[in-house]
Amino acid sequence: MKAIVYHGPGNKAWEEAPDPAIVDDTDAVVRVDTTTICGTDLHILKGDVPEVTPGRILGHEAVGTIEQVGTGVKSLAIGDRVLVSCISACGHCRFCRQGSYGQCLGGGGWILGHLIDGTQAELVRVPFADTSTYKLEKGASDEEIVMLSDILPTGYEVGVLNGKVRPGDTVAVVGAGPIGLAAILGARLYSPGRVVAIDLASRRLEAAKSFGADLTVNNAERDAVSCIRDITDGLGADVAIEAVGVPEAFELCTALVRPGGRVANIGVHGRPATLHLETLWIRNVTVTTGLVDTYSTPTLLSLVGNRQIEPGRLATHRFGLDQFVEAYDVFARASDTGALKVVLSR
Amino acid sequence: MKAIVYHGPGNKAWEEAPDPAIVDDTDAVVRVDTTTICGTDLHILKGDVPEVTPGRILGHEAVGTIEQVGTGVKSLAIGDRVLVSCISACGHCRFCRQGSYGQCLGGGGWILGHLIDGTQAELVRVPFADTSTYKLEKGASDEEIVMLSDILPTGYEVGVLNGKVRPGDTVAVVGAGPIGLAAILGARLYSPGRVVAIDLASRRLEAAKSFGADLTVNNAERDAVSCIRDITDGLGADVAIEAVGVPEAFELCTALVRPGGRVANIGVHGRPATLHLETLWIRNVTVTTGLVDTYSTPTLLSLVGNRQIEPGRLATHRFGLDQFVEAYDVFARASDTGALKVVLSR
Amino acid sequence: MKAIVYHGPGNKAWEEAPDPAIVDDTDAVVRVDTTTICGTDLHILKGDVPEVTPGRILGHEAVGTIEQVGTGVKSLAIGDRVLVSCISACGHCRFCRQGSYGQCLGGGGWILGHLIDGTQAELVRVPFADTSTYKLEKGASDEEIVMLSDILPTGYEVGVLNGKVRPGDTVAVVGAGPIGLAAILGARLYSPGRVVAIDLASRRLEAAKSFGADLTVNNAERDAVSCIRDITDGLGADVAIEAVGVPEAFELCTALVRPGGRVANIGVHGRPATLHLETLWIRNVTVTTGLVDTYSTPTLLSLVGNRQIEPGRLATHRFGLDQFVEAYDVFARASDTGALKVVLSR
Amino acid sequence: MKAIVYHGPGNKAWEEAPDPAIVDDTDAVVRVDTTTICGTDLHILKGDVPEVTPGRILGHEAVGTIEQVGTGVKSLAIGDRVLVSCISACGHCRFCRQGSYGQCLGGGGWILGHLIDGTQAELVRVPFADTSTYKLEKGASDEEIVMLSDILPTGYEVGVLNGKVRPGDTVAVVGAGPIGLAAILGARLYSPGRVVAIDLASRRLEAAKSFGADLTVNNAERDAVSCIRDITDGLGADVAIEAVGVPEAFELCTALVRPGGRVANIGVHGRPATLHLETLWIRNVTVTTGLVDTYSTPTLLSLVGNRQIEPGRLATHRFGLDQFVEAYDVFARASDTGALKVVLSR
Repeated sequence: MKAIVYHGPGNKAWEEAPDPAIVDDTDAVVRVDTTTICGTDLHILKGDVPEVTPGRILGHEAVGTIEQVGTGVKSLAIGDRVLVSCISACGHCRFCRQGSYGQCLGGGGWILGHLIDGTQAELVRVPFADTSTYKLEKGASDEEIVMLSDILPTGYEVGVLNGKVRPGDTVAVVGAGPIGLAAILGARLYSPGRVVAIDLASRRLEAAKSFGADLTVNNAERDAVSCIRDITDGLGADVAIEAVGVPEAFELCTALVRPGGRVANIGVHGRPATLHLETLWIRNVTVTTGLVDTYSTPTLLSLVGNRQIEPGRLATHRFGLDQFVEAYDVFARASDTGALKVVLSR
Repeated sequence: MKAIVYHGPGNKAWEEAPDPAIVDDTDAVVRVDTTTICGTDLHILKGDVPEVTPGRILGHEAVGTIEQVGTGVKSLAIGDRVLVSCISACGHCRFCRQGSYGQCLGGGGWILGHLIDGTQAELVRVPFADTSTYKLEKGASDEEIVMLSDILPTGYEVGVLNGKVRPGDTVAVVGAGPIGLAAILGARLYSPGRVVAIDLASRRLEAAKSFGADLTVNNAERDAVSCIRDITDGLGADVAIEAVGVPEAFELCTALVRPGGRVANIGVHGRPATLHLETLWIRNVTVTTGLVDTYSTPTLLSLVGNRQIEPGRLATHRFGLDQFVEAYDVFARASDTGALKVVLSR
Repeated sequence: MKAIVYHGPGNKAWEEAPDPAIVDDTDAVVRVDTTTICGTDLHILKGDVPEVTPGRILGHEAVGTIEQVGTGVKSLAIGDRVLVSCISACGHCRFCRQGSYGQCLGGGGWILGHLIDGTQAELVRVPFADTSTYKLEKGASDEEIVMLSDILPTGYEVGVLNGKVRPGDTVAVVGAGPIGLAAILGARLYSPGRVVAIDLASRRLEAAKSFGADLTVNNAERDAVSCIRDITDGLGADVAIEAVGVPEAFELCTALVRPGGRVANIGVHGRPATLHLETLWIRNVTVTTGLVDTYSTPTLLSLVGNRQIEPGRLATHRFGLDQFVEAYDVFARASDTGALKVVLSR
Repeated sequence: MKAIVYHGPGNKAWEEAPDPAIVDDTDAVVRVDTTTICGTDLHILKGDVPEVTPGRILGHEAVGTIEQVGTGVKSLAIGDRVLVSCISACGHCRFCRQGSYGQCLGGGGWILGHLIDGTQAELVRVPFADTSTYKLEKGASDEEIVMLSDILPTGYEVGVLNGKVRPGDTVAVVGAGPIGLAAILGARLYSPGRVVAIDLASRRLEAAKSFGADLTVNNAERDAVSCIRDITDGLGADVAIEAVGVPEAFELCTALVRPGGRVANIGVHGRPATLHLETLWIRNVTVTTGLVDTYSTPTLLSLVGNRQIEPGRLATHRFGLDQFVEAYDVFARASDTGALKVVLSR
């Protein structure tokens, strides 16, 4: 088969690789029908994720078709169409039994395209297949569904649910890239009073409006803290969602949240941030971090099925699998190309 | 009357001051029967709390007797014995209506001994008396009850309840001074599996044991993170409570909490801390801060009444009101004197 | 002034009554600009609520203008336009301090038009005015806002929030009268997967559709339990909201809820129901009851201000105050007149 | 092997039965070291549980040693000592993924001694062994641990956690048989203000005292509702736990709970109860039912390991496996014999 193979920082290729096979009896091998590229894949290519070693096939998102199943797989059969979750779950460990699959102690968690070969390939071995994939109904569009591998549950669980968005809330989303837009889509399910998108790029703020932001603030031009205070009787946002992954964005979130409010960090950070406890200690603020657990995937599948949430709108560019290198280029140059999510299909 | 009057950094005196009078119709004037000194009072005396201006009477903790009530006071009568809460509550604003009295927008919050004259005096004017004091049953000891003005609800609400301590949890309390001990007392109400006290001073760790810590770690001598991991299958504490107020203690808390755990900050901080988002972003950690709201005061009063919690054990030294300067000295030199809380009574 | 005075079962009149005056210093006297009639008023007129004694002025819903305030009223001034809540709150008691105003132990709760004279009058005395009314912004429509006195917070708190409606849920609302429709409006704020309205009358089911029900079941014609099971893989509804107030409706709710689901009772019941514990004991079901507390009123006001919820759609008929008897007649004959809420304005 | 085989209502015998074998690859065969008899087994013997058909081996509680494992069992090996849970969990279905193992849709739930052969035998086949058993540390006593198969998690989850017992609460436990005592043990973990045991038999009330009840009410002699009101300012209990399984006990619970309180039903009911909605509709009461899910088993194991909860105190009589018929007799005549739990060991 062919796959995107990582060859160390800055190097990758769409090249021949051995077909995966069943290793453990709970594995499935899935033919990849549709996949996509995550911002995390770009981090890996920069060398920021040293656990990813040369020779690794990248990718942790896919919709595909079951090709083989191990003898221990109970709920899947060859030919079944499935969503492959970015998180694998052993299903037995302490964390899996509490729905914290992202923290799996039994060999799961985020492993695809990280610790084992991933989904940017014609075929992929998926461990713990019964608890790491979701069988799909007929009729669902691959392009919609592939957004449920990672970006949509991440925005929803780590941003919206951790942030406890409630009807009437003022929700500030700092960062209007794809994950910020996914958080906006998810936040709207709870009827916030106002979603305010904050970013340095006007183009992204326009996208945020089209995804449901009520207000936008370009914080290259205006002071976001004052803007939020002006619309909240001087108090601040009920919920601030960090969707960038740099210290400045996180620190902005802690500055614009109201007393008693919640800061939900989604961003993948490479550096520490400053936590201004000298002002925050007295303000009853809750800060959460999190890798997605994907416990919300069944709910999100039903909401997408009902068209109550339309994550397919994140797909801006489409490619064949053999155009993977070009797709990476378009995605990496998002500020030029306007790419949100690029979708690759066979 | 006489009172402890602040005269700028480093200066205070027990001196004559005008008797307080009813200003607003919801005020009461309370004769102070018993009061105490808070670590925050020492911060004020160092000049760390600039809102406290010279001439201010200090103190925000008292048990006393109602001397006068305004015409708008409904539930109190002259002669009633009351607990004076460190937090005053207008009772009408958005935050008061949610029990977040510490964040009161209607003129309350932490004002006693801060923005208005306080309780280290023979008499004190208490605003919003109906919602800022608690009538006492006969039989309760002043020395027990005065611990409910601030230290016990702070340890309980900001440490134990924010930290969501649950039966079986491993709870790390960083800092075994009075507020750390109050957190230990409160934590025991939820039957944690183990309370681990961490401090640099052996004397305080001995106190922690007597207040209910199961294990102690002197982190001048041993690495607290390893100690906690050794007893938690390498995972970390379920809950880490910061009870010091310095960046190092907070950072230790974030290092020793398990994936999915909670860090509850109680400490009053004067400097920012570093939040290691480069490791925490992926660990599903919740960090809370808070000024006490005192919503738990009725519950704590009943638990003290039942002797299910015995905060009187925090009282190590006793003085008359006219010995206030000596009492401050003993409290300020706690590492020499072993003082936890000093109690002053008329 | 003139008012609707109750003269025992079956008897009422729009007649001259003494103007109300300030009794307690926390009272306000409000000129009624807009009021409405509640199903509970019809129960009172049937004699079902014996605490209501002849001579009582009825009504517990109003938008009005402050005419007088007692000396203890802090946040209101003559001329302020206010929403009068159906629930009065002393603000000091145990339940008020937890936001359970409906259970007020200090003389509040549901008292207007019940234990003291009510709002179906030109003037009304409102006790505890600071915590029992809400100052209104300019621009809000009386007709919208009067729905926040009772029906909208009741549907929202007692139905939607008690029932813990969540995104994707199947929500069954049994009873599509005004309160059922209010529950549907409120439920939509949480993006349920499907709201199913169940009623015996086709006309009400048509109204339910226009208020946001996705499906309707006429249970005079079809078995509601089978209908719900058919669309939920045989499991049942996540949430069942009782909005009628008869045993049959409640029992239906307990039959159509899934294992682990919630039954939220809104209906005012005059007779006991049968709880089939012989089947329910094993099904992990939660049943809630409740009088509205009105803690959600500030949120609902902001949602109405944003037009995220449009309770004005409940108003089907409009009258002047002097047409009150006619308005009662139209409302009482709702099955003929199609009345949902009748609005009376001066 | 030998086992207790059900031969229709009123008939059972300790007799020869075929050794169980692995059927599905996730099965284990466990040698029973210690088992016990549940009140539910007596119901089965009366013919009250028609799904149990003649020929069935009874029992759903055991501590044992792994004898065989299927090829799909990952975490267990021959010779491991395990707790066998009364609930089997497929681990993959919607309910299992939320920790609601009792409602398993994948072939689990309460099946042992019910739909498949059970634990009152020398050997038992346990399906879904990885997620339906718990490996035991050395040192734990069989007699303590066997109480975690069913009675302790049932009292804790269905009584204490569903009832949301909190520090300071007044908790009424109606029924002081074994399951009521287990609920008392569990409730104490949350430091309630008072646990009041209510029963018709003085002997059971004495047991309740020794298990931690602060007060007892013999409701053959006194009116339990008045007794509870007398100690709660007329309000009622914060939490009422039904631990009998008859309508009268449930109805008593709903009568003695305070406004805003919780009724947690543990009892196994054979007949419907009357729910007095005509008084309850206005009282903000929450009623829960539930089969145990056993999600708390790991926590309870650690609490027993720490001796923070001592369920071994429920064991009153001890037998060898070959005395099973005698043990049944002693247990069935509990009012004569004083039996709480009878323990059978090989």
